[in-house]
Amino acid sequence: MKLFGGIEAGGTKFVCLVGNGPDQLVEEKRFPTTTPDETIAQVIEFFSPYTDRDELAAVGVGSFGPVDLNPASKTYGYITTTPKPGWSQVDLCGRIKKGLNIPVAFDTDVNVAAFGEQYWTPQNKTLDPFLYMTVGTGIGVGIIVNGLPLHGLIHPETGHFVIPHDLQRDPFPGACPYHGDCLEGLASGPSMNKRWGQSAETLPDEHPAWDLEAEYIALALVNLIYAYSPQRIVLGGGVSSHSGLHVNIRDKVLQLINGYVQSPTLLKKIDSYIIPPTLGNRSGALGAIAMAIIEQAKITL
Amino acid sequence: MKLFGGIEAGGTKFVCLVGNGPDQLVEEKRFPTTTPDETIAQVIEFFSPYTDRDELAAVGVGSFGPVDLNPASKTYGYITTTPKPGWSQVDLCGRIKKGLNIPVAFDTDVNVAAFGEQYWTPQNKTLDPFLYMTVGTGIGVGIIVNGLPLHGLIHPETGHFVIPHDLQRDPFPGACPYHGDCLEGLASGPSMNKRWGQSAETLPDEHPAWDLEAEYIALALVNLIYAYSPQRIVLGGGVSSHSGLHVNIRDKVLQLINGYVQSPTLLKKIDSYIIPPTLGNRSGALGAIAMAIIEQAKITL
Repeated sequence: MKLFGGIEAGGTKFVCLVGNGPDQLVEEKRFPTTTPDETIAQVIEFFSPYTDRDELAAVGVGSFGPVDLNPASKTYGYITTTPKPGWSQVDLCGRIKKGLNIPVAFDTDVNVAAFGEQYWTPQNKTLDPFLYMTVGTGIGVGIIVNGLPLHGLIHPETGHFVIPHDLQRDPFPGACPYHGDCLEGLASGPSMNKRWGQSAETLPDEHPAWDLEAEYIALALVNLIYAYSPQRIVLGGGVSSHSGLHVNIRDKVLQLINGYVQSPTLLKKIDSYIIPPTLGNRSGALGAIAMAIIEQAKITL
Repeated sequence: MKLFGGIEAGGTKFVCLVGNGPDQLVEEKRFPTTTPDETIAQVIEFFSPYTDRDELAAVGVGSFGPVDLNPASKTYGYITTTPKPGWSQVDLCGRIKKGLNIPVAFDTDVNVAAFGEQYWTPQNKTLDPFLYMTVGTGIGVGIIVNGLPLHGLIHPETGHFVIPHDLQRDPFPGACPYHGDCLEGLASGPSMNKRWGQSAETLPDEHPAWDLEAEYIALALVNLIYAYSPQRIVLGGGVSSHSGLHVNIRDKVLQLINGYVQSPTLLKKIDSYIIPPTLGNRSGALGAIAMAIIEQAKITL
């Protein structure tokens, strides 16, 4: 049996995996995202021993964005207009494909994480739509409808949701360079850092930052619930893993919906409706392996 | 060739159509929604001459909601928890099926309208996702993904989006019985009526109500664009058809997105991205005919 590669290409770090699934991992490497040349070289170096021995069937990539997902486009597989220095208009998919000379599946980091959480978790398998939301360095949502990641015009950009912002309670103007106080501008890790003058990890449990953070995430989740009527939402990312935050968010979601969405799945069982990632901090890289498996199966057909 | 029936079952009025498409309409009837017994009897009476002559192959129904769309449920085809007096727990689909004794396709009013605008309009045909938003007595959004209406846990309830509400500019607390100042609570026809003490139709073009209304609708559209990355949005309903409102809404959508979604389809051609219904005030009933055609095709397979 051949192996598969998974790459979570994040704006802060890359995660590379080789294996056949969560319980069949062969090797893992994590390294910070620096320049495209250096970082992509590290990716190629990590997987090369496997391709040299012809052990790797395909790799999947879940990338930070915005990315071009249109297979008919000249810039398919590119990171497009990212503000991250040096990474704008980088042919991430093409350069990995050229370096490894095997099939490459490509999608957004959040779509790939959503795909992984559904593919590798039996109890998520038939849920439709199925959502994965990350709150960390950035905020994003991956959406699986009919078993496939949703793309549309470009791809969803739910991190930039417009949400109510009570300037009396939170006078911070927001940190998004495009929108100021959009969701990401108010609730991402860097926004929290700017708002409170210290990083989210160092804010104690009893700090008012966490109740405000729960409020913003709950507002976004409520709009996602109204928009998609999802059958389950996985809430991941570094910020949202803070102790007690999930419980507070769930309470606020129920308060905001106020009984309107008459589904026992939501109203009676919210603990299994909004859940942490089953795959821990490997949703992206394992999702990328799942995408690689599907890519290989399509080619073999 | 057999004929098809389309029913737009609205909270205010019902629209019934017989025909084979927008250019092949045989008969149309509109009547106010009163009690379930009286209104459903009028539906049966309208279609009965056609079923008596065995001319009608199937009917489609697009209903106000919430409705039960789960085919495995005991209450499939019911209007469930509507606050509309007398209409809660009414088996709309089953009673029409029993009365006419032909196949009945059933979905939400907005999903059916979205389906119709896509099915009958060649230039909308391959767009994915494709959205229809109505702003009138209520606010709702129908979503077509991969050619099918999106359902999920129940069905989307985008009319209840939480949006920013500037109490300085608009001290009205909102009219939604569940959420106060959600989108529908601020921007539906009845909410405008309550806010301004007169009905939307009687508010002159220069009244500040319209700029505020454009703002609320634009905020909702921006969140829909971030959530779905739709390839086109049809904006229908009585309120949104007010003269000049579409132009103002498009301007505000572009201002709010502020160049973030880097797609020429959106940034350069918004006049063909957010459009009025091609089918005028028959999106729902003609969509219901399209659903009936598909239902019949599935049975014939």
